[in-house]
Amino acid sequence: MCQLLGMNAKNPTDLTFSFTGFAQRAGRTGDHVDGWGMAFFEGHGVRHFVDHQSAMKSPVAELIRRYPIKSTNVIAHIRKATQGAVALSNCHPFVRELWGNYWVFAHNGNLVGFDARLHSHFHPVGGTDSELAFCWIMQELAKSHAGVPSIQEMTLTLRELAARIARHGTFNFLLSNGDALWAHATTQLCYTERAWPYSMVSLSDEDLSVDFSQHTSPDDKTAIIVTAPLTSNETWVPFAPGELKAFVDGQLQAF
Amino acid sequence: MCQLLGMNAKNPTDLTFSFTGFAQRAGRTGDHVDGWGMAFFEGHGVRHFVDHQSAMKSPVAELIRRYPIKSTNVIAHIRKATQGAVALSNCHPFVRELWGNYWVFAHNGNLVGFDARLHSHFHPVGGTDSELAFCWIMQELAKSHAGVPSIQEMTLTLRELAARIARHGTFNFLLSNGDALWAHATTQLCYTERAWPYSMVSLSDEDLSVDFSQHTSPDDKTAIIVTAPLTSNETWVPFAPGELKAFVDGQLQAF
Repeated sequence: MCQLLGMNAKNPTDLTFSFTGFAQRAGRTGDHVDGWGMAFFEGHGVRHFVDHQSAMKSPVAELIRRYPIKSTNVIAHIRKATQGAVALSNCHPFVRELWGNYWVFAHNGNLVGFDARLHSHFHPVGGTDSELAFCWIMQELAKSHAGVPSIQEMTLTLRELAARIARHGTFNFLLSNGDALWAHATTQLCYTERAWPYSMVSLSDEDLSVDFSQHTSPDDKTAIIVTAPLTSNETWVPFAPGELKAFVDGQLQAF
Repeated sequence: MCQLLGMNAKNPTDLTFSFTGFAQRAGRTGDHVDGWGMAFFEGHGVRHFVDHQSAMKSPVAELIRRYPIKSTNVIAHIRKATQGAVALSNCHPFVRELWGNYWVFAHNGNLVGFDARLHSHFHPVGGTDSELAFCWIMQELAKSHAGVPSIQEMTLTLRELAARIARHGTFNFLLSNGDALWAHATTQLCYTERAWPYSMVSLSDEDLSVDFSQHTSPDDKTAIIVTAPLTSNETWVPFAPGELKAFVDGQLQAF
């Protein structure tokens, strides 16, 4: 199984602190050593980093821990291979373009007997069940909407599509196009919302604390979505099985 | 205008030496300061780095100068903005998926009045003429072939498509799917082939030499394609206007 980390923020925010804790699970506090990846939206542009080395050893991950890339939507993934070899083409997150938006997707889980018929323009490059599921979602979205739908409409369509794939196994995923971040859980995902007044928070996976009030303004809002809580003194709300949530401007949406 | 750098190699090879010289053109020996990008194929997987900072200042470019990523096909680009704002979504190279392959594209030049009709699944995310041309090429390739064609067939199709775009202006580009690297010039591109026995070569843009015979084996072959010669003591063959060449396993192909 793998682990997921997502961030949706109102203002461009760096994820250095959370990624530092998360990366510990790639060898030190977890065994997710079969590659990692991370995508940062800046507007509709994407920086996409993948490596088949573990996030503890990768020089690229080391760069990200030191270089604060500010972004409004981030998706990170550390991999423990279940299907597909340890290879760059199997590292999440995956990226595709649809309607002139980049779409970024990462999955935690294992799908069995998910034999989707791909009859459109989206095909996997690697050999994972995850990339196959992503290509199928892109195909079905392209069929459902002529152009980028509203975030609410998109949420309703995704809810239907996710339920169809989830019949085949564990399907926790994160998806973003830079405007919103969608998160779906069948087994394990939780989120926290950070807003003014910020306080001191402490990582669960490493002996490190940061006082967010020193680095933030009253206008900042950030939601963090992750497989297992990253900090020991924040409120992490677990997803119910089958829940799909949308986050915009650092806040959970009601629909 | 921008500058292009491509590598096609028989065996995974790092481009640290050539990129060090190339990156000097982003501020020191050239004025290509409006972003840069680089994509490395490992098999059919891709590492894709883009930054809207110059390649001289970018921490990501600094990482690439120090961290030898071994690859068989590399495309790099340093940008001097002509069309489109300085933004991440306008940084080359661009990546799209077609037939289960990633395709990587970078362009040097300026297209005027190229108003391609995009009626398929490929749409630009940013605002450059370059990404529009790339999306049109992907669309036309998808119409011309049902699946990945042979490299020779692909070369013939690309030659026709490139000629149609080149009517609109300067269209020097590099394209790869990990199996081959295609290069097209209307004004400025040259290449060199490095093979056994290797010797000492010296960068034109920086006071740096490397003795490739110390780092290579008799089985290695590498072709380097670049806007202007990178070294002062190798033979660089200029492209004729309108030429499209294919490189496979580090060698220029005859077709």
